[in-house]
Amino acid sequence: VTVAPRPITFLSDYGVADEFVGVCHGVMARIAPGAQIIDIAHGLPRHDVRAGALMLRKALPYMPPGVHLAVVDPTVGGERRAIALRTAEEDRILVGPDNGLLALAAQRFGGTIDAVDVSRSHHRLDPVSATFHGRDIFAPVAAALAAGAELLDAGDPIDADEITLLHMPMAMAEPEGLVVHAVGFDRFGNITLDVEHQELTETGLRLGRPVLVGDHRAHYAVTFSDVPPGRLMLYEDAYRTLALAVNRGSAQDLLGVALDDELTIRPA
Amino acid sequence: VTVAPRPITFLSDYGVADEFVGVCHGVMARIAPGAQIIDIAHGLPRHDVRAGALMLRKALPYMPPGVHLAVVDPTVGGERRAIALRTAEEDRILVGPDNGLLALAAQRFGGTIDAVDVSRSHHRLDPVSATFHGRDIFAPVAAALAAGAELLDAGDPIDADEITLLHMPMAMAEPEGLVVHAVGFDRFGNITLDVEHQELTETGLRLGRPVLVGDHRAHYAVTFSDVPPGRLMLYEDAYRTLALAVNRGSAQDLLGVALDDELTIRPA
Amino acid sequence: VTVAPRPITFLSDYGVADEFVGVCHGVMARIAPGAQIIDIAHGLPRHDVRAGALMLRKALPYMPPGVHLAVVDPTVGGERRAIALRTAEEDRILVGPDNGLLALAAQRFGGTIDAVDVSRSHHRLDPVSATFHGRDIFAPVAAALAAGAELLDAGDPIDADEITLLHMPMAMAEPEGLVVHAVGFDRFGNITLDVEHQELTETGLRLGRPVLVGDHRAHYAVTFSDVPPGRLMLYEDAYRTLALAVNRGSAQDLLGVALDDELTIRPA
Repeated sequence: VTVAPRPITFLSDYGVADEFVGVCHGVMARIAPGAQIIDIAHGLPRHDVRAGALMLRKALPYMPPGVHLAVVDPTVGGERRAIALRTAEEDRILVGPDNGLLALAAQRFGGTIDAVDVSRSHHRLDPVSATFHGRDIFAPVAAALAAGAELLDAGDPIDADEITLLHMPMAMAEPEGLVVHAVGFDRFGNITLDVEHQELTETGLRLGRPVLVGDHRAHYAVTFSDVPPGRLMLYEDAYRTLALAVNRGSAQDLLGVALDDELTIRPA
Repeated sequence: VTVAPRPITFLSDYGVADEFVGVCHGVMARIAPGAQIIDIAHGLPRHDVRAGALMLRKALPYMPPGVHLAVVDPTVGGERRAIALRTAEEDRILVGPDNGLLALAAQRFGGTIDAVDVSRSHHRLDPVSATFHGRDIFAPVAAALAAGAELLDAGDPIDADEITLLHMPMAMAEPEGLVVHAVGFDRFGNITLDVEHQELTETGLRLGRPVLVGDHRAHYAVTFSDVPPGRLMLYEDAYRTLALAVNRGSAQDLLGVALDDELTIRPA
Repeated sequence: VTVAPRPITFLSDYGVADEFVGVCHGVMARIAPGAQIIDIAHGLPRHDVRAGALMLRKALPYMPPGVHLAVVDPTVGGERRAIALRTAEEDRILVGPDNGLLALAAQRFGGTIDAVDVSRSHHRLDPVSATFHGRDIFAPVAAALAAGAELLDAGDPIDADEITLLHMPMAMAEPEGLVVHAVGFDRFGNITLDVEHQELTETGLRLGRPVLVGDHRAHYAVTFSDVPPGRLMLYEDAYRTLALAVNRGSAQDLLGVALDDELTIRPA
């Protein structure tokens, strides 16, 4: 009895100018013919593990459960492990380097229940190059798992709590206000914060009301058209996370914040 | 009896750096497993509805008939409707914002015979975000229709002539010559005009002959190699539309024209 | 009896901003419904036939055998032939312009055993434009072949040795050292050479040992972390070809070499 292969999703920082993504597709098509491969994105800032982890966490709930390949791998060829893991919810399999890239997405689906080190998996290509583990380890392991191979047979079992975590700042309700952090920026200068609307109940911050972001007056709005051009706004982004934007401008420039910088938000 | 899903084509201005396109693919793969999704392009200038409408019109005849999703949506979250429509010819279903984006392509296939407002379609994701209707409304509606859902059940019926049109300039044969307009530019500075070769019969313009474009001498040529480098040429582009180019140069720079500018062409 | 279509791979210099790639996908989906299409890459430097030929040669071994479409076509509309060929090994079919683009990949699979000129193939679209043969000739011919059409019926037979070759410099072991050439550069300034590790046996160059590249001291290393930042290294790249790099720098800038420039490498 043959079973249709599971869908594979693929996220990386390889860019689309070179053949890296295409070659990984080819490798997977050879091992799991007929498997659907969905590219989440390949334009992540090079080597930005955290941006990759955040993107994977927010994109995965919209992807069909299957095998989720992610490659942002600044220390390829070094000591970091290559891993595959199974999440507690929805039986999703995540494959990638053990550098924190998979941690937030695994958490989002109830955590890891099984994990293996696939650095020496028998599903690898032979030989394995020093620099292109996406092609030689991660893609073939992902494809083999999509085609029905057993996770626990794909590598050496490791403890779920040995998996590398991603250290992220953490929003806190303090007496002087809600202390949040700039955890991401998009190309428009919008700032992603580390808090969701539903966590605001105790903070006195209310949709439709003025707020203070540090010393800057802002409006807690629904859409850009709720505030005049040039005006700072706090809003819930499309992934239910709070964010800061300037209508037709750049919140990042206005506030002059860098990654992980702290911001205090309170009712105005 | 299950029927194979129809192919889906997808055009947007989302770019490929972020996860927007990938997330829409994921949403469609969940709703219409096995549906083929063909990306027409996602590199349209941001918010350029007309460039999107022109690209959709010229690309669609080369696409298998199916469901054609297009998202260029500068007023997302505002009042514009979300629509799905069926064309008179080839039973193509077009899905997108009702801002003119679908108008030229619908016209190209004989016009609209059925249309629905899908803003509150039961195929939507729940919740619907304020800013990412591609993911929350358009992609799920397109996928449901590809998987066999009925168009008239996907939203509230609207009159075909209530659909927003796209206002375009219109080429006219005048006594002083053929008055055309610059309706698009590509990255090489080639200028797309709003007239086709077959409309030239009464104008005295003949392939292989010299013409005047305003005060500039040009040649009505077949390929770039028909004119010397630096020389202006009028030609039929790969979609049978007339265009202006400078061999190894930029017609846009030479003529100094902007979008919709009028140009008069006559035999030299 | 219907047979599943063969996979198609697609390489071009069309870029992804415009609709060119998407339109070729649409054309192929109409002719070979259900065929898997794998994009190798579309970001090649415009009109760079040799970069395309090198990329095709290195990517193809990782692709499932099938029909391999490649379009880098600076003289489209001119005299060059359009061809389809079958390789001696693995029954791969290559389709593209006869300008050397297919030559290295064909060689890699044992050379050409059958070839046809498809410029006037009955599989072409009608009409054929002057400038977009990817859409009008190459994609439809590739799709027809993937769907099961006979190669020898797809065009006019031509002799395998009439196919245009690609002239490349050739590495030579000379008394003063190994004379190699800079045959490609990537965006990090790494330089691809025209020699593989396995060809070094007689040269005295040994992995782990210091070497001289012209007058520059370098190290024959395995990975970037083997040399300090700013230091030149010789290494085997992910496709088993020798290359030069500077850890966190640009070998191209350091050595000031241009395409095809000669370099002499010898033990230090």
